[in-house]
Amino acid sequence: MSGGFPNILEELIEKLEKLPGIGRRSAQRLAFHLLKISNKELDNLVNNIIEAHRCIKPCNLCNNFSTNEICQICANPKRDRETICIVETPQDVLAIEKTAQYQGLYYVILGALSPLEGVGPGELNIGKLLNRLSKGEIKEVIISTDPDNEGELTAQFLIEKISKYKVKIYRISIGIPLGTQIEYIDPSTLGKAIIDRRIVI
Amino acid sequence: MSGGFPNILEELIEKLEKLPGIGRRSAQRLAFHLLKISNKELDNLVNNIIEAHRCIKPCNLCNNFSTNEICQICANPKRDRETICIVETPQDVLAIEKTAQYQGLYYVILGALSPLEGVGPGELNIGKLLNRLSKGEIKEVIISTDPDNEGELTAQFLIEKISKYKVKIYRISIGIPLGTQIEYIDPSTLGKAIIDRRIVI
Repeated sequence: MSGGFPNILEELIEKLEKLPGIGRRSAQRLAFHLLKISNKELDNLVNNIIEAHRCIKPCNLCNNFSTNEICQICANPKRDRETICIVETPQDVLAIEKTAQYQGLYYVILGALSPLEGVGPGELNIGKLLNRLSKGEIKEVIISTDPDNEGELTAQFLIEKISKYKVKIYRISIGIPLGTQIEYIDPSTLGKAIIDRRIVI
Repeated sequence: MSGGFPNILEELIEKLEKLPGIGRRSAQRLAFHLLKISNKELDNLVNNIIEAHRCIKPCNLCNNFSTNEICQICANPKRDRETICIVETPQDVLAIEKTAQYQGLYYVILGALSPLEGVGPGELNIGKLLNRLSKGEIKEVIISTDPDNEGELTAQFLIEKISKYKVKIYRISIGIPLGTQIEYIDPSTLGKAIIDRRIVI
């Protein structure tokens, strides 16, 4: 201890501090909370963590979170099996599912190219995707990586790779979001929206 | 799942979201991190949480975090046993210990009065403190609750209670912090520093 917290608590705070998005203060606050909760609450939390860690694996087809070999979206016979939407993360799958505007399948590349962070083409999980495209069952690919530097770079890389197969390639539309006012839109988005304008009539 | 994450993951996110300072986004980020780490890292973290929860209890004398009945500060024969510093939380003990300017004991009241949050005098842990003061071994009390509304209210309440015993009562000095410039100090702190001015010669 030496004037500090008991060692076991210090260790816990240090471990919590290493979790993403948790600084020293939040780690302390979390640790104190974990000390205070009832045995039952603690058991529930710990078991949930262990169980999720044990059960959830990437889907064998698309890399989305799944408790089975094949995720529920890939296993759903009602989905359009000729369209694949490529996203960076399982969170993106969830976000697109919430729109209820997409009936096809997904492919999660689990990240994006980032030269600054040393993520090169080798780190992207696209082997299963290309293998699948080579079988000719997929007719359309919608590239839905983030509209930021990494996502755009990844989109370019994917377009290059995928253009070798006989599929239509789309990029998710980038432009001014609904419910905003044009005077407040950042210049790069607004510029992109002008460049990517859609013909109306 | 129903277009969302697998249930076990959804449940984990919901549990993490209930932790203090964790919103939906951080909860997701934490959950995904916990899914990814190795079995060994997970075991370490979980065991640390369980062990800390099991071992750490409030000190029987002062309520500070302790792995024994009596915390290391209360058990230390070198500490001045006639002075008690009253603080709101174990974190405050740590902060004062770090200054190396205090050799006495502590008493942690585990909170502060807060009429808005329904914390009344009954919720403050001062029974053991008053009991100890009644034995006449303590000569000085330094009230070091926070210099905010709740802390000041609590200080007033403590002064009222403690003034019944034969002890000197101090309030930690409130004023302008070292290393700042007077022109940038907030008016209420600056005003308090003028009112509480110390005589020099």
